[in-house]
Amino acid sequence: MSIASFVLAVSALTTPVDPFIGTMGDGHMFPGAVYPFGMVQLSPDTQTRYFKQSYPWAAGYQYDDPTILGFSHTHFSGAGHSDLGDVLTVPIAGAVRLDPGEADEPLSGYRSRFSHDSEKAEPGYYAVTLSDYDVRAELTATARVGLHRYTFPAGKTAHVLVDLRSAIYDYPGKVLWSRIRVRADGTVTGYRQTRGWAPGRQLYFALRFSSKPVSNQIYNREQPKPEYDPGFAPWAKRDDVIFREGRALVAVFDFGALPSSQLNVKVAISGVGEENAIANLDAEAPGWDFDATRTAAAAAWHAALATVEIEASEPVRKMLYTSLYHTLMAPSIFMDVDGSYRGPDHEIHHAQGFTFRSTFSLWDTYRALHPLLTLLRPESDNIDFVRSLVASWQQGPDGLLPVWQFQGQETWTMIGYHAVPVIADNWLKGIKGDPGPLSLDAMVASATNPRYAGLDEYMKLGWVASDKEREGASKTLEYAFDDWTIARAAESMGRLDIAKQFEARARNWRNVFDPKTGFMRARKSDGQFREPFDPAAAGYYGDYTEGNAWQYTWYVPQDTAGLIRAMGGNKRFVAKLDALFDSKVDPKAFANVEDITGLIGYYAHGNEPSHHIGYLYVYAGQPWKTQERLKQIVTSQYQPVPGGLSGNDDLGQMSAWLIFTSLGFYPVTPGSGEYVIGRPFVDRAVLHLPNGKTFTIVAENLSDTHGYVGGVRLNGRPLSRAFIRHDEILAGGELRFIMQAQPSRSWATDPRSRPYSMSSYQ
Amino acid sequence: MSIASFVLAVSALTTPVDPFIGTMGDGHMFPGAVYPFGMVQLSPDTQTRYFKQSYPWAAGYQYDDPTILGFSHTHFSGAGHSDLGDVLTVPIAGAVRLDPGEADEPLSGYRSRFSHDSEKAEPGYYAVTLSDYDVRAELTATARVGLHRYTFPAGKTAHVLVDLRSAIYDYPGKVLWSRIRVRADGTVTGYRQTRGWAPGRQLYFALRFSSKPVSNQIYNREQPKPEYDPGFAPWAKRDDVIFREGRALVAVFDFGALPSSQLNVKVAISGVGEENAIANLDAEAPGWDFDATRTAAAAAWHAALATVEIEASEPVRKMLYTSLYHTLMAPSIFMDVDGSYRGPDHEIHHAQGFTFRSTFSLWDTYRALHPLLTLLRPESDNIDFVRSLVASWQQGPDGLLPVWQFQGQETWTMIGYHAVPVIADNWLKGIKGDPGPLSLDAMVASATNPRYAGLDEYMKLGWVASDKEREGASKTLEYAFDDWTIARAAESMGRLDIAKQFEARARNWRNVFDPKTGFMRARKSDGQFREPFDPAAAGYYGDYTEGNAWQYTWYVPQDTAGLIRAMGGNKRFVAKLDALFDSKVDPKAFANVEDITGLIGYYAHGNEPSHHIGYLYVYAGQPWKTQERLKQIVTSQYQPVPGGLSGNDDLGQMSAWLIFTSLGFYPVTPGSGEYVIGRPFVDRAVLHLPNGKTFTIVAENLSDTHGYVGGVRLNGRPLSRAFIRHDEILAGGELRFIMQAQPSRSWATDPRSRPYSMSSYQ
Repeated sequence: MSIASFVLAVSALTTPVDPFIGTMGDGHMFPGAVYPFGMVQLSPDTQTRYFKQSYPWAAGYQYDDPTILGFSHTHFSGAGHSDLGDVLTVPIAGAVRLDPGEADEPLSGYRSRFSHDSEKAEPGYYAVTLSDYDVRAELTATARVGLHRYTFPAGKTAHVLVDLRSAIYDYPGKVLWSRIRVRADGTVTGYRQTRGWAPGRQLYFALRFSSKPVSNQIYNREQPKPEYDPGFAPWAKRDDVIFREGRALVAVFDFGALPSSQLNVKVAISGVGEENAIANLDAEAPGWDFDATRTAAAAAWHAALATVEIEASEPVRKMLYTSLYHTLMAPSIFMDVDGSYRGPDHEIHHAQGFTFRSTFSLWDTYRALHPLLTLLRPESDNIDFVRSLVASWQQGPDGLLPVWQFQGQETWTMIGYHAVPVIADNWLKGIKGDPGPLSLDAMVASATNPRYAGLDEYMKLGWVASDKEREGASKTLEYAFDDWTIARAAESMGRLDIAKQFEARARNWRNVFDPKTGFMRARKSDGQFREPFDPAAAGYYGDYTEGNAWQYTWYVPQDTAGLIRAMGGNKRFVAKLDALFDSKVDPKAFANVEDITGLIGYYAHGNEPSHHIGYLYVYAGQPWKTQERLKQIVTSQYQPVPGGLSGNDDLGQMSAWLIFTSLGFYPVTPGSGEYVIGRPFVDRAVLHLPNGKTFTIVAENLSDTHGYVGGVRLNGRPLSRAFIRHDEILAGGELRFIMQAQPSRSWATDPRSRPYSMSSYQ
Repeated sequence: MSIASFVLAVSALTTPVDPFIGTMGDGHMFPGAVYPFGMVQLSPDTQTRYFKQSYPWAAGYQYDDPTILGFSHTHFSGAGHSDLGDVLTVPIAGAVRLDPGEADEPLSGYRSRFSHDSEKAEPGYYAVTLSDYDVRAELTATARVGLHRYTFPAGKTAHVLVDLRSAIYDYPGKVLWSRIRVRADGTVTGYRQTRGWAPGRQLYFALRFSSKPVSNQIYNREQPKPEYDPGFAPWAKRDDVIFREGRALVAVFDFGALPSSQLNVKVAISGVGEENAIANLDAEAPGWDFDATRTAAAAAWHAALATVEIEASEPVRKMLYTSLYHTLMAPSIFMDVDGSYRGPDHEIHHAQGFTFRSTFSLWDTYRALHPLLTLLRPESDNIDFVRSLVASWQQGPDGLLPVWQFQGQETWTMIGYHAVPVIADNWLKGIKGDPGPLSLDAMVASATNPRYAGLDEYMKLGWVASDKEREGASKTLEYAFDDWTIARAAESMGRLDIAKQFEARARNWRNVFDPKTGFMRARKSDGQFREPFDPAAAGYYGDYTEGNAWQYTWYVPQDTAGLIRAMGGNKRFVAKLDALFDSKVDPKAFANVEDITGLIGYYAHGNEPSHHIGYLYVYAGQPWKTQERLKQIVTSQYQPVPGGLSGNDDLGQMSAWLIFTSLGFYPVTPGSGEYVIGRPFVDRAVLHLPNGKTFTIVAENLSDTHGYVGGVRLNGRPLSRAFIRHDEILAGGELRFIMQAQPSRSWATDPRSRPYSMSSYQ
């Protein structure tokens, strides 16, 4: 056994990951090869080129599709909207078809059938046999380079097709411009600019083959033919075209009969330029040792995953390690090896002392993903996120922190200014390298930008006026929480003026609470609630964001105590929570809103506004009810199978929820420094913290029949409160749950044992 | 009188320039403001947006148009194909219309009527009154910045519209992408990428107003509405839009009632990026003193124009100084103040020790423009051209020196590899800073690139095979000349192997000479001339480039003696030349070929293949016939009026021809170091050479009736030969022509007095 295979074996033993989990249905995961937080996500695409309905193919791949188009180098992990699918590379044996063809018409194009039996996926590695060509394709990756190893059948000519038209969430006209160039040394470089989810996005690449092509063609397939086509270059019709520009480029590299049957391809990407892509390629993949790269990727994953040791049943371990794997992909690197990157102004910048990151799905990830990374990767990653966010604010044209940014470009997707809680939480946790006052400037500027969705009215009235701005109820609630985190960060920096201003804004949730119906409702400029009102109604462009009043009414993470009081006390609060979970709801009720999935009553675990709700019973002194609901959620929403995710993983948020919840606690209120204790789902877990300490979670007597927390001990001493603080975890030690068959009506039920709420301090 | 106005007055007195010359008809000149070799050419555009026939508007302006669209920042001077017209800026008083409207429907759009009475143009300055708005617009420029001074009428609101859709040679889909951003300090930046003559060209800009706008709107007028429009940014519908991307952007800046009626606008451009455009703006136009900038531009022009002192009648002086003005615009600067530029690979490069230039109309300009600049601006400009050409070869994707390049981008327009004679001539003239061996590498690589139009067959057969490649006759002839210049440069560098190889290729003109018809003809791969043959036939995609056999048969500048011999001697040669000039040709005969204009018989002075022909009588020992033909050409083809150019000025080539010819000599064979003596058209001229010496041309007894050269004295000693050498001019001194009423049958008729021909040395 070589060292390489030994590492792979150890990795597989200790951190069982199944990249196929979430690749079917609403999970929107991709099974391909990626390095932790890598800029390249090299994965098979199975979608049809122009979708009638693109949503299922947000990651390019759906498990039940019969064909693979090829392998492209960029993918989102679990997104609800999409783009990417750059530099589609296709190995072809025999005849070459220039267009992808239809999935249900074999050999109608270059796409090939495949069988799941031939597929293999591990962290940093993916393989499949393209059965129409009998080509074995293996993929691995460094941070910025995708490596392909193709094994061709004997006796057939080998080709590689590169289709710069192919895109995830494609539509006519998406590719604005593209280029392919074959350089004198055989390096193929190019770029494309697309108007997709991110407008005007530029992506550059550099590609090398392990063998020299016999010939290369570059076609421009644009239809209708452009009025002025740069393909009029004097040699554009030759067989050895070395340069072409246009809107529909396809290159075909012909290798004839390969000397050996194997052909390796390596592709680096860059947001900056072709020369930078070459530099990335040279730096990260100078040679041709596919196995060594695969081993290095596996080792990097193993090191990243092994920071959490989990003892549980194998299905649970697989689910959790796969979840952990999913939390270590985004916000991904978007910077070249020389420190340069293309920022939100589309200009080239140089990161000073940090690694620029992008793919910020902040509305999702501020809730649990970022808090998880403040524990597991504070200085290696979380501080990069903060500095990247602040740099984007400085460089962006809009004067706002990113909302939903990828490859440096803003998409204006979802609501709120949730870079704020990420930054504030980071600051409040004292993670080294935070730019401090500059962070505060960025947060305040974003939260007071009158151009941003309804903020002008929000600042005047105290709510987002629903006659002027859509989703007024949701926006008011989320702004108010974000404001609270600014208040906390400002307070900690000694800026009490700012703290006071935003503390007041943090109470704005009260302005959209309707005591008559007991729901959060959108309010108009004149102060009236909008009529008619149906707490079950959901739809795009209504008063709620991907949800309804049932789901959004619980969104006061900064002041659940205040919410309980507003609702009329613990009893009514709990009754309403129960009604949320126990209502009989037609599963098709929300078919009109793509993201409302994973229903338990009106509770929708497939989407983020619900994520904290299971923990809220704790605030009403009934932690056992939280324990029950968590079991209900965990068992119904996560399965270690391709269709095992009930909703989009959302760049790690769904997964981070499961990790926290399985460990026994969850960050209901990022910025508070507290994690609310639920109940564990693993027998034992050890967090190997970056500060060198370990924090161990033990669940004594945990079993299917013993799902209630009877008591908790922190470092051997009884813990009677229903939360644990960030600094207590960082200090290392042991959190021991004593599980029992019956609910405990005494543990952590005292009002003084409850987690942070603004009102508790009044 | 201030110093500023004094300089202007002196300049106007001594160097009378009329920028309107050539703005009507086929000249394709623009009347706007430009700095010598400036990157910005700020000029009014009069064309209709989508042309049915765009050719007349190659410079954006036609003198007889009734309306002005606005003022854009980039223009070609006298091009035969076109593009540019970037960042159209329009001052508007009162109501704003967002589309340009039709020229024949007043007030149907933002374009305004104007009267030539209100127009004023001088080097570095242009002014006009837009009568629909009663706005006085004045323009001036630095190298990289255009300055506008608008005087608005009292009582009307002032606006400035910036239309990123507007383009010269526009067509639907030309704008691939664009951006406009209003920065916090009020600077407006942006870019657009176009698929015009140069594919995928990117141009960035930075604009500042002297007053702060009251509001700004940015519209995306794309139709049909795009499927995914980044205008969904949360504030895209607000009045103070600060950022927008799209394919059809129009920005309107509203200044309300201006405190003073004047508004200044300054716009810098960059090929690199928005930050670079800002840096260009900061460096070259930090303040708001329009008059100072105008004075500086006038002074720069005066200094440049004053290097040639001309004594002649005022119309001749005006024609010549305007011609000189036209020779000092291109190849223009295309580099930012920090030395960076976007090269032919679309990547950003940094010029080391030179200023990157582009707008190389080489098929035209290698003939007389570049030779003129080797005299007037060798080290300040010509060496930059050479280094830019070589850098483009190194950086370009095609392995070839530029053919027709602008803003760093290749257009593949026209034929030949005429960067070669520019580089070779520069080397052979010993101009300091030439990269020598690297230049030779670039020339040889270009001349032996089998991908380039017909070169593979040319290298195998000795001619461009007309069954494989169009324009085979013209290409063979031009390649052969270019090859001769490589041979000369290689010889001078001691690379005799290369010299021998290209000396042989220089004789390839013989392969397309048909002794039977006496014409140059295209030859097929099998060696047969193509049939049927009509020496008068011309058309695109035939055997000749913008010409016919009558025009192309004379193109052996490296070996006119050989051509004479092939034609059967001096008598037949002269008879055929006379037939060329004296044939009766229907002026509409060539209506199908845009560039064949300025006809005298079949001689077409409006296009470059004819330019040397008038001088060829000299090689047959009949210089007086050259003198007659030159008079015929000069008087019929150049008039100091808007319609006074018979053909495209072609970036200074037509003008350079006139300057040389008026001084009495012309570079028939660039690379030979010789100028063939014709006859002067000025009484006296002084060249103030950059080496500090002066070379004076005197035409004794010159008059309308005294147009023949009776004798020539160089520095007082009789010059019996019909040419003068470059080094003789550089040495300074006096060339004195003694003019007479009758032709001299003795001066320079001896075979030993004739200019260089390859065959003469055999």
